[in-house]
Amino acid sequence: MMSTPTNARAAGPTRDQNDLAERFAAIRRSTLDLTESLSAEDQQIQAFPEASPTKWHLAHTTWFFEAFILQDVAPSYRSFHDDFSELFNSYYEGMGPRHPRAARGALSRPTLGEVEAYRRHVDDAVQALLGRPCTSETLRRVELGLHHEQQHQELILTDILANFSLNPLRPAWRERTGTGSPPVSSPGWVEIAGGVHEVGADPSAFHFDNEGPRHQTLLPPYSLRQTLVTNLEVVGFIEEGGYRTPSLWLSDGIVWVRRHGVEAPRYWRRGSEGWTTFTLYGEQRLDPHAPAVHLSGYEAEAIATWLGARLPTEYEWEVAARQSGLSPQQGRWLGNGLTQPSATVPDHARELCGLWGEVWEWTRSAYSPYPGYRPPVGALGEYNGKFMCNQWVLRGGSCASPPGHLRASYRNFFYPAQTWQFSGLRLAKEVK
Amino acid sequence: MMSTPTNARAAGPTRDQNDLAERFAAIRRSTLDLTESLSAEDQQIQAFPEASPTKWHLAHTTWFFEAFILQDVAPSYRSFHDDFSELFNSYYEGMGPRHPRAARGALSRPTLGEVEAYRRHVDDAVQALLGRPCTSETLRRVELGLHHEQQHQELILTDILANFSLNPLRPAWRERTGTGSPPVSSPGWVEIAGGVHEVGADPSAFHFDNEGPRHQTLLPPYSLRQTLVTNLEVVGFIEEGGYRTPSLWLSDGIVWVRRHGVEAPRYWRRGSEGWTTFTLYGEQRLDPHAPAVHLSGYEAEAIATWLGARLPTEYEWEVAARQSGLSPQQGRWLGNGLTQPSATVPDHARELCGLWGEVWEWTRSAYSPYPGYRPPVGALGEYNGKFMCNQWVLRGGSCASPPGHLRASYRNFFYPAQTWQFSGLRLAKEVK
Amino acid sequence: MMSTPTNARAAGPTRDQNDLAERFAAIRRSTLDLTESLSAEDQQIQAFPEASPTKWHLAHTTWFFEAFILQDVAPSYRSFHDDFSELFNSYYEGMGPRHPRAARGALSRPTLGEVEAYRRHVDDAVQALLGRPCTSETLRRVELGLHHEQQHQELILTDILANFSLNPLRPAWRERTGTGSPPVSSPGWVEIAGGVHEVGADPSAFHFDNEGPRHQTLLPPYSLRQTLVTNLEVVGFIEEGGYRTPSLWLSDGIVWVRRHGVEAPRYWRRGSEGWTTFTLYGEQRLDPHAPAVHLSGYEAEAIATWLGARLPTEYEWEVAARQSGLSPQQGRWLGNGLTQPSATVPDHARELCGLWGEVWEWTRSAYSPYPGYRPPVGALGEYNGKFMCNQWVLRGGSCASPPGHLRASYRNFFYPAQTWQFSGLRLAKEVK
Amino acid sequence: MMSTPTNARAAGPTRDQNDLAERFAAIRRSTLDLTESLSAEDQQIQAFPEASPTKWHLAHTTWFFEAFILQDVAPSYRSFHDDFSELFNSYYEGMGPRHPRAARGALSRPTLGEVEAYRRHVDDAVQALLGRPCTSETLRRVELGLHHEQQHQELILTDILANFSLNPLRPAWRERTGTGSPPVSSPGWVEIAGGVHEVGADPSAFHFDNEGPRHQTLLPPYSLRQTLVTNLEVVGFIEEGGYRTPSLWLSDGIVWVRRHGVEAPRYWRRGSEGWTTFTLYGEQRLDPHAPAVHLSGYEAEAIATWLGARLPTEYEWEVAARQSGLSPQQGRWLGNGLTQPSATVPDHARELCGLWGEVWEWTRSAYSPYPGYRPPVGALGEYNGKFMCNQWVLRGGSCASPPGHLRASYRNFFYPAQTWQFSGLRLAKEVK
Repeated sequence: MMSTPTNARAAGPTRDQNDLAERFAAIRRSTLDLTESLSAEDQQIQAFPEASPTKWHLAHTTWFFEAFILQDVAPSYRSFHDDFSELFNSYYEGMGPRHPRAARGALSRPTLGEVEAYRRHVDDAVQALLGRPCTSETLRRVELGLHHEQQHQELILTDILANFSLNPLRPAWRERTGTGSPPVSSPGWVEIAGGVHEVGADPSAFHFDNEGPRHQTLLPPYSLRQTLVTNLEVVGFIEEGGYRTPSLWLSDGIVWVRRHGVEAPRYWRRGSEGWTTFTLYGEQRLDPHAPAVHLSGYEAEAIATWLGARLPTEYEWEVAARQSGLSPQQGRWLGNGLTQPSATVPDHARELCGLWGEVWEWTRSAYSPYPGYRPPVGALGEYNGKFMCNQWVLRGGSCASPPGHLRASYRNFFYPAQTWQFSGLRLAKEVK
Repeated sequence: MMSTPTNARAAGPTRDQNDLAERFAAIRRSTLDLTESLSAEDQQIQAFPEASPTKWHLAHTTWFFEAFILQDVAPSYRSFHDDFSELFNSYYEGMGPRHPRAARGALSRPTLGEVEAYRRHVDDAVQALLGRPCTSETLRRVELGLHHEQQHQELILTDILANFSLNPLRPAWRERTGTGSPPVSSPGWVEIAGGVHEVGADPSAFHFDNEGPRHQTLLPPYSLRQTLVTNLEVVGFIEEGGYRTPSLWLSDGIVWVRRHGVEAPRYWRRGSEGWTTFTLYGEQRLDPHAPAVHLSGYEAEAIATWLGARLPTEYEWEVAARQSGLSPQQGRWLGNGLTQPSATVPDHARELCGLWGEVWEWTRSAYSPYPGYRPPVGALGEYNGKFMCNQWVLRGGSCASPPGHLRASYRNFFYPAQTWQFSGLRLAKEVK
Repeated sequence: MMSTPTNARAAGPTRDQNDLAERFAAIRRSTLDLTESLSAEDQQIQAFPEASPTKWHLAHTTWFFEAFILQDVAPSYRSFHDDFSELFNSYYEGMGPRHPRAARGALSRPTLGEVEAYRRHVDDAVQALLGRPCTSETLRRVELGLHHEQQHQELILTDILANFSLNPLRPAWRERTGTGSPPVSSPGWVEIAGGVHEVGADPSAFHFDNEGPRHQTLLPPYSLRQTLVTNLEVVGFIEEGGYRTPSLWLSDGIVWVRRHGVEAPRYWRRGSEGWTTFTLYGEQRLDPHAPAVHLSGYEAEAIATWLGARLPTEYEWEVAARQSGLSPQQGRWLGNGLTQPSATVPDHARELCGLWGEVWEWTRSAYSPYPGYRPPVGALGEYNGKFMCNQWVLRGGSCASPPGHLRASYRNFFYPAQTWQFSGLRLAKEVK
Repeated sequence: MMSTPTNARAAGPTRDQNDLAERFAAIRRSTLDLTESLSAEDQQIQAFPEASPTKWHLAHTTWFFEAFILQDVAPSYRSFHDDFSELFNSYYEGMGPRHPRAARGALSRPTLGEVEAYRRHVDDAVQALLGRPCTSETLRRVELGLHHEQQHQELILTDILANFSLNPLRPAWRERTGTGSPPVSSPGWVEIAGGVHEVGADPSAFHFDNEGPRHQTLLPPYSLRQTLVTNLEVVGFIEEGGYRTPSLWLSDGIVWVRRHGVEAPRYWRRGSEGWTTFTLYGEQRLDPHAPAVHLSGYEAEAIATWLGARLPTEYEWEVAARQSGLSPQQGRWLGNGLTQPSATVPDHARELCGLWGEVWEWTRSAYSPYPGYRPPVGALGEYNGKFMCNQWVLRGGSCASPPGHLRASYRNFFYPAQTWQFSGLRLAKEVK
């Protein structure tokens, strides 16, 4: 789900070490802000193997700076604890043995207090490092560590939601803010011309390795719908028996539906007064006009088919995003006070609403290497490359993504059966 | 693993309500004493489905008094929280829906502080109840609740050991006390005469329902070894290839060994300097002369066979215990500062060492109802009766059993594949 | 499921080698008679791991004579094929490697024709052996081999039923014979006095090792119902929601019901015109007054509880069978033209109907060694001893047991979740 | 694994009904030719869920003509048996209920003789149909049925190999023909220029729906190795610890290796005299210079990485095949007496050896719809479209593919963990 930047020059403005030190302090602090309402016990639990404990995220992101920077370039650095590498290495085979993912929730030790001390210890060492002249490779890795930290900020939220969802007491992470979404009457479609387009990362700015190399692709003309698929549309799918209609589904999708008895999106419940859904604000009435979320790739595919359309490819999404003229800064991200998707009414006929933020948009593109892609040498080469099979690409970011983290070339990826992320869909279709 | 008393008169001395109130206070307090060294996070974790979180034990034992006493007989009693019954009901189908056992570790809410408040709320209500005249049925249930609490005191220890065992940091519950066990040279065998013997609970004293009815059984003569099987004997079993010799094993046993790749008892590790084992004191060198512990019933069977003997039946154990003249008060229980088994050198040729405490002794008896047994009416009838199949009986108690809890007729029971209890074995053989 | 005779004198009348040779020929031939209606393909299939292919049974019983007799005592004997020991050894660890049980159905080679030739090869060699003076041990093993063959005759039928049951074409092994069962109005109960009783095998006659040693047991007085539990009673259990009432079930039983979604006995189907059941005669309407069959031990327990009674112990069954004065010769076995259980109306108030044949009767006795039991030395010691845990004893034999095979001390045993045998129940209760 | 033609005009030459009738007779007969050496029992077995019994293939391909042609357009056609649709429908949800795939091996009925009669019944009806004037849609479906039959010819071979492989007797389908492969010294690389290329099916000839629509794609320049990866290269991979080196593997790949304990390709065994492999000729010494086969996609990826190269994309393969000037007619297919891959020495520097036949070549392309692809309406739309996720594309055909069946646009697809097909790899790399 992450990737390493391949381009040292990307560090451009961040070579200003002071700026980087300030951003380091701000981003590290904003991670802790997310955990303010959580007790030590809340930060301990792991409801299922994929949803790591909050405390583990706090420690793992810290280990990342320790293992890939401090232990490499700060000769006088003393590790906080010899066993932490085993405990907090996520998946880097090249960095030694790892505690099994499914058993992260069993680590009551180190305590939350000790993890906080670990963070301070590493923060101090990174700041000391940044106070002295650094190589561009060091700066590049600090930059990478900050983007990595931001990825885990989103995971802290998706995981605490999953962890809380098993509790009959229905705990809330925060009090609800925001109001219901407005209806969008008859959303239009935005047509994009075919031809040869540039895709992939701008080599002059920070990006993960999986976003490059930049290259050309040939697309036929296509259309994207202005607005994301809504909860109300999913209710229609359910009511027309969508989950019981094999012809709407990929074969692996209907197998998934049957094996798990899926009858509605994750977190939905049908009560006597209609649908509710479990959110970071606790159990809430379903917001009919909000973008549907926590969908598997299979559900996204089936719902698109039922709506007479299809999922876009990742290139279609990227080209449209570049042409939209919209900037990620305008997106609906974490930190605008929102952690539930919420609909936007388009201003004009060509606006693509919810392009940045709201929900990650499933594409029909399998997650594969771009032409000419080579993973970086060393353990950081495991950041992205080894995951390039069997997963699907998602684009655009979500209401739980931190602001400043996303861009048009950003590739997120999950297995099509996974649903605990803020994942939804936008419709595409051919132009006739 | 537990059982309901069937005999109201058993309450005999406890009918003194003052005494009962005092015991109630003492036993409830001693539960909390066990958790003193544990943080909120330690009390939250559940490493595998059978090992419940400490916090859950604290709440469940409290729910037992609330559900089976206060809500029944204290009309003005107000439940602490409406959802706690679902959260903290263990297995009583008759008491409504239950949170799944394997997901107890996901309940970060209620917090430990709330559970402590719940304990105080219920303690106060029980003490208020006991301050007024009570029916004998009420007193009987309070008595039962205390024995139930004591059962969970042992589980708190076995479960925290299992929970800590997954942590590479090897946490300790307490600092080690005690010294290594002395060797016992050539332990003898105690012969017990055959004939008709009385077995089962004394109807005039407290007992669980599964210990009755008292009845007669006909036994051939037999011998029991004076001392428990030791770690050193198990090392011999390992070194002679015991885990790879199917002829020593029951068929289900060798299947279990192969499926799980078992090569030594649970918690044992072979290091460069010999065997260590994980204990409530953290990782420790193996005490060669101490009773072997954390054995499955399958291992106990195979080790007994390898030693040219067999497991006793539960009747053989009970008759020998009654004839030994030893009192449970002399046993090596929790609270004597011990939470690891430790060998005793027999004083004389007929002494059965480690009969009370040290390790639960696997018997070859399947857990079945005694002749004429009927489970009590109502949800409390689920305490024991419904478990009477596919498990094996263990006798005698362990170093983690609370003092004052055991007696000659006490029947503990586990599946033969289970190893996280303090379970070992004593040898039996025929008299020729 | 089988056992070795421990008493060489058991060979008594069979020491007459001519008689034994005649019985050998007859029993071996009767096995093939059972397969007459089955094609090579029918004899190949294995619908689930426990139901071996018919062809495998034909070869395995032959291997038994080859491995335990010919290769031991006939020096000039040449094995039919070197690899057959691996293919057709069932579970004897002491006899070398074994083809996995679940993959028996994958052995298209040797062909049925080759297996038939293997049978003739071994038959000829055994007959040649019996034509010369033999030791009593040899005769004892031939006798054992014949009882073993008979056990597999029953398995051939239970397995082909299971194998055919997966086929939507609903094949029949034979055409139906016999008519529906008569109703038995108000069956009575037969009371048996308590006291010390002899149980276990008569040492002067053939028996399997698990039936001994003969010993005394002390029983309280009890009653057995005259007739077996019927299909109509099971229909009542279903209609009153028995499968959804946890209080009727053992804990492991209700877990089994829920995991497998059990709503009726194996092979039952509810159609628009009522219940049908799949039998060796194909799909048939349920015979309401016939003994219920293909019940798990869990179902037997729950149905007994629902009927206000309990299962008998194996000793209760054996003592009652001995006192009944009924001889196994009067039983309803395979070969009387019956392969479905069928009710009998009792002649008089003390008659126990269906005691011999009809259905195996689940007891509440766990399968355990008798006092003083020691398995025989060598691989034949695996015949029975290693299975003595986690299974339950069944008594009496079924409509698929071969005549002449059963006796009062005979102990059959299966796991309580197994249902593909002809297993039903008789009620017991205390005498007040 | 299959697909429907979308273009009615594709029937072009086959509209000559006489020709089609002759091809129908020839192809249907050649299926039976493959089964000549197999007994009824051989044709019954199913060693694992994916490897269907031979008999089932014979019936399923027949059902295809019955269900999609005769029952649609031959009004007087009488079904051979009403239940055969349930038994022999593979995966068409739109055609009613289906017998579970994993239980095909349990269908001893219909017998092989009955299935042969079923084939004749349907063959006669199709021939009668073709003897009268037919619509082009009918002819198109007959054509499709023949291509479908050919796909199952290959499956008959891969499945009987898998089925036989579980048998310790190591049966052979046929006697070995052919000799060992010659070594190829220093195979070269063929460079292909980048640019916009046409890919996808020729609309004027028969093709499956998944091969279209024909479209343009933009490729960078690349090279393909002349020869396929050989067994000797895989031996090198093993000897250098390739299966234990995570950095060579995709993350899902190393998980697969560890879960299944993979140490060599499927069917390989290391004996005292070196490697052997199980083939349609029985157990054979490994042919060092032959193309490696029965590789998973994960192994193909790891081996390519270890060799400093990568897998090609499916477009790279197709463009190179079109440019090679080689015709599928020159390939090494089934029917040339070969059912094991065998190396070819390249004639000249630009020859791509083994392009047609030998082994299916894994590509790194996920199996996805082409731009503008829409599955056909109706149950035949399930032929290909619903499988377009989570599988990888293979190209080129194998030694078990029937001659006349393949073409440059042909897309085969399997999950990357699957190994029972004749699957290997060719290396690709970037041009610098």
